[in-house]
Amino acid sequence: MRFDIVTLFPDCFTSVLNSGLLSKALAKQIAQVNLVNPRDFTHDKHRKVDDEPYGGGVGMLMKPEPIFAAVESLPILPRREIILMSPQGQTIDQPLLRELSTNYNQLIVICGHYEGVDERVLQIVTREVSLGDFILTGGEIPAMALINGVTRLLPGTVGKVESLKIESFESGLLDYPQYTRPANFRGWNVPDVLLSGNHPAIAKWRLEQQIERTRKRRPDLLEAWEKENDSNS
Amino acid sequence: MRFDIVTLFPDCFTSVLNSGLLSKALAKQIAQVNLVNPRDFTHDKHRKVDDEPYGGGVGMLMKPEPIFAAVESLPILPRREIILMSPQGQTIDQPLLRELSTNYNQLIVICGHYEGVDERVLQIVTREVSLGDFILTGGEIPAMALINGVTRLLPGTVGKVESLKIESFESGLLDYPQYTRPANFRGWNVPDVLLSGNHPAIAKWRLEQQIERTRKRRPDLLEAWEKENDSNS
Repeated sequence: MRFDIVTLFPDCFTSVLNSGLLSKALAKQIAQVNLVNPRDFTHDKHRKVDDEPYGGGVGMLMKPEPIFAAVESLPILPRREIILMSPQGQTIDQPLLRELSTNYNQLIVICGHYEGVDERVLQIVTREVSLGDFILTGGEIPAMALINGVTRLLPGTVGKVESLKIESFESGLLDYPQYTRPANFRGWNVPDVLLSGNHPAIAKWRLEQQIERTRKRRPDLLEAWEKENDSNS
Repeated sequence: MRFDIVTLFPDCFTSVLNSGLLSKALAKQIAQVNLVNPRDFTHDKHRKVDDEPYGGGVGMLMKPEPIFAAVESLPILPRREIILMSPQGQTIDQPLLRELSTNYNQLIVICGHYEGVDERVLQIVTREVSLGDFILTGGEIPAMALINGVTRLLPGTVGKVESLKIESFESGLLDYPQYTRPANFRGWNVPDVLLSGNHPAIAKWRLEQQIERTRKRRPDLLEAWEKENDSNS
């Protein structure tokens, strides 16, 4: 997978690219990340990337030309998507991450900044993606989330395939509670069933915990899960 | 606001803390970020922070002791919240960011990693927060989103207060399309009304665009907005 990140703040990505899973995926050439700065595609003395909005309003907008020029400078791979990170977009969820990791070889990710981007940038964008219903100062952190979530689904990144399969949002339920050593920590004990070695009982307890927790915290997810399970049975 | 980030990967935060809004907020002492590594609170030769889950399963869990010790090493400010970043938590949205920025002086943010944390860590956690319904390799990027979103709401961080007020999710609607120079870009023109100088007409057009865009893309938000507006009138 090739990621091309179009950002006014490429330095912002350095640490995240050099640590944890992403640095390993880059080293193994499972993923490749290229940073491109629209400011390098300006031709005026002040290298201006933003300007005031037509019709008035506070703040500055990112101009269309440097973004178009930055995107057009990139090589074109056969299956590519041009994504704008924007609070107006489709909210990231696990099916979207899976779709992006499966169906594309190249994800060009445009990070908005300031008050946003000129609307005409949408002419080259194939998908708008949002991190959620809240505002950050730019699309850089949302882009990091997208890259991390897609990369960990690429074959070879996470050691054991099972480690992906059983986790929350793949089953449609929240996770069950997990415990590790010590069995007694400050008087709080690990539930007996987990120490029993009785694997069917453990599996049953875990599923019950998942359902109960999802019912309490995310009834919306439980409802979807129950529908799904009804139609499968 | 004081942020204490409990993370196995403190280096991951360097670039984000050194760029953009956050570096300015730190320089102005509006926000303060302290990184604390649970690994520094282990006492065994291998400085072990993770272990296998009781009851079986793939992957490793973060042990409770180093996390407790890391949190307990921190100074206690009067209004503090201890947050665990976890896909099982309350989803971040703008009201949550506003509540955190207004009601607290100290946010301790615990970043999970590997398959998650020992359940008993919840004994010191006052709130679980999720970035959304998807899986990342750790809580570090979600913590960055939380810090960025809270910091930009702190007084003195964003230049103009209006710049916060009119944006999406504060009004309850998605943003209207915005345009900047040039008026004609590759044959795509800025809508006439924005060049008219007729401010009531511009305000009317923008609100119509917000409603129309929200109806198309996020009918759930529009419904909530209509209810809110009915009850206010």
